[in-house]
Amino acid sequence: MSLDFKVEARDGAARLGRIKTPHGEIETPVFMPVGTAGSVKGVPQHILEELGVQILLGNTYHLYLRPGHEVVHSLGGLHKFMSWDRSILTDSGGFQVFSLSELRKVDENGVSFRSHLDGSSHFFTPERSMEIQIALGADIIMAFDECTEHPADRQRAQASMEMTLRWAERSKRYFEEHKREAPWAHGDSDRTQSLFGIVQGGMYKDLRRESAEKTVTISFPGYAIGGLSVGESRDLTREMIAETLPYLPEDKPRYVMGVGYPEEIAEYAAMGVDMMDCVLPTRAARHGLLFTSEGRLNIKNARFTQDQSPPDPNCSCRVCSRYSRAYLRHLYVAGEPLAAVLNTLHNLAYYLDTIRSVRHAIKFGELAGRRSGLIPSSSR
Amino acid sequence: MSLDFKVEARDGAARLGRIKTPHGEIETPVFMPVGTAGSVKGVPQHILEELGVQILLGNTYHLYLRPGHEVVHSLGGLHKFMSWDRSILTDSGGFQVFSLSELRKVDENGVSFRSHLDGSSHFFTPERSMEIQIALGADIIMAFDECTEHPADRQRAQASMEMTLRWAERSKRYFEEHKREAPWAHGDSDRTQSLFGIVQGGMYKDLRRESAEKTVTISFPGYAIGGLSVGESRDLTREMIAETLPYLPEDKPRYVMGVGYPEEIAEYAAMGVDMMDCVLPTRAARHGLLFTSEGRLNIKNARFTQDQSPPDPNCSCRVCSRYSRAYLRHLYVAGEPLAAVLNTLHNLAYYLDTIRSVRHAIKFGELAGRRSGLIPSSSR
Repeated sequence: MSLDFKVEARDGAARLGRIKTPHGEIETPVFMPVGTAGSVKGVPQHILEELGVQILLGNTYHLYLRPGHEVVHSLGGLHKFMSWDRSILTDSGGFQVFSLSELRKVDENGVSFRSHLDGSSHFFTPERSMEIQIALGADIIMAFDECTEHPADRQRAQASMEMTLRWAERSKRYFEEHKREAPWAHGDSDRTQSLFGIVQGGMYKDLRRESAEKTVTISFPGYAIGGLSVGESRDLTREMIAETLPYLPEDKPRYVMGVGYPEEIAEYAAMGVDMMDCVLPTRAARHGLLFTSEGRLNIKNARFTQDQSPPDPNCSCRVCSRYSRAYLRHLYVAGEPLAAVLNTLHNLAYYLDTIRSVRHAIKFGELAGRRSGLIPSSSR
Repeated sequence: MSLDFKVEARDGAARLGRIKTPHGEIETPVFMPVGTAGSVKGVPQHILEELGVQILLGNTYHLYLRPGHEVVHSLGGLHKFMSWDRSILTDSGGFQVFSLSELRKVDENGVSFRSHLDGSSHFFTPERSMEIQIALGADIIMAFDECTEHPADRQRAQASMEMTLRWAERSKRYFEEHKREAPWAHGDSDRTQSLFGIVQGGMYKDLRRESAEKTVTISFPGYAIGGLSVGESRDLTREMIAETLPYLPEDKPRYVMGVGYPEEIAEYAAMGVDMMDCVLPTRAARHGLLFTSEGRLNIKNARFTQDQSPPDPNCSCRVCSRYSRAYLRHLYVAGEPLAAVLNTLHNLAYYLDTIRSVRHAIKFGELAGRRSGLIPSSSR
């Protein structure tokens, strides 16, 4: 078994589903916390398990640079390396090359870039991205794409989208030949990784449609919508997702990459998106921003100095059931490492609760009614 | 009940005991992790509980500067502020003023200093230290002392020790009048904080003896040996402890402040010390130094890159039972916040296991036999 996806209930456009991977089951819609370099920053794996995390995202670019995919492979793959028995997805490295590396040069063959860590030169091709992702051994891996910058004119977006299609074919070709080489696959043809395709097309509806249709023609067990959350308005993000979803098959998982705020997670799930990932809950936590049922809290705010209430009175996570806003503010202001740990723990709990309650609502056909009151977007 | 101490078994000079405070029982000999600013750096309180921590040390100087003792008091005291229901000890602030602050000026009345955080001016007297420690509300608080610098000539050490004696009397006088004012004491005369005296005297045996005898004459429910671990050799530390212990009453807890390496902890316990605290396990962890039954590991060492063994094969802590040296090395080298969290967790587990096994050995009269093979001091 490499990947199995079943839709178990529907509510409007939203779907309640279940993905089976070689490392377990994932209830969808799912939010995937980001564990960039083999760790969700500051959170031990047993606490991620406690939170109910079923799948983590790892970043190919970071793991390739450090500790190196050969090292991870020689240690049994990413699951074993980081001691995480549940599912993992790795991105293709394309987005990080685009956003982090220096002196990037793209041509038909691939991308040459310099490491943001030490300036060393590297070259990623679709084949190389597959080789690296196979060595890392995530359950779900992503085709190598070019994440089109925003804004991009139509001609540029089209050329970029078309190259991503050609790269998708090359990715698939390499993957099919090597997919039994994952560190845990043991040459077993029934237990392999799965490769997802990625739709690009910039902010042009017809290019998104063309990209979706042609990516589906190549055929993958799941499809991602990439190239969003790159600086465009939220209305435009929503529009591009709405435009793309109808062209992706109903019986495959649909993944929007790199989104978003809690209210976006709930909204896109309602539109029929099955998978999402974002650094927001973890990165914001490290900057003292907490997501709560009463809105966002900037925990460093002086008005929390003597506030004995929990971060979110409606949250039952380990942080909210034990610590006060006053204590969390103190930890943050004093530069205590526990600040990031506890803030991250709460934000992840909040995101996972949000998506859990969306799943619950889909199950009982109550999504339309629940959503309006569920996710406050106001900031405090 | 303010403090109750019972010796339950003896093995040579070592004692197995039990301290009861208003917040629970402490098995002695005990090692107290340091939670400087109301947090053991990077470790959530429920994990400290899991590790079996029975008493934490908080630093008066840090908490006074940030968030301020009035803030902590208004929030119900340090226990409630940091959500820690077990026992807490605060130091007097004297050592931190000595080691951290700027433009320190000491006279008979007290110490004026500038904050290491913002340069603001402050003045600590014995009375002020008591006032702050009562507001914080630890179960055990410490008399305000001058930690004599090392080296110090005899005249300087004697003058400093004598001032510490006068400050001990002033500390006790203030404390006796105000000890029912702890945030949780509710004016109950049977449930109060306890004030320990501190022996000084530099590295002069006769001054140590004089300091011990005169501090005991003032009378406290427990006695600390201060002014050690200030740069002297370990032989000298041992000598000063050995010289002082005979002059401290058998029926009171004896606390050596600011020590030490795991092998020191075991050695001093064998000499009859009941309480110890040190930043070493937590601070070293943040620098990638792990204490193990096989010696010390510098986890950043390149030879751990592909080392799949646990940090300490004889340790059953959450870190050693789940993660490899290769993973911990990666986290450290990649600057991942989880590195400090996991390293700290292991080092604390190792210290607590060390002192637990010392207690076990005392109980069964096996300390002399166990110690020789127990604690390797070699570095790897």
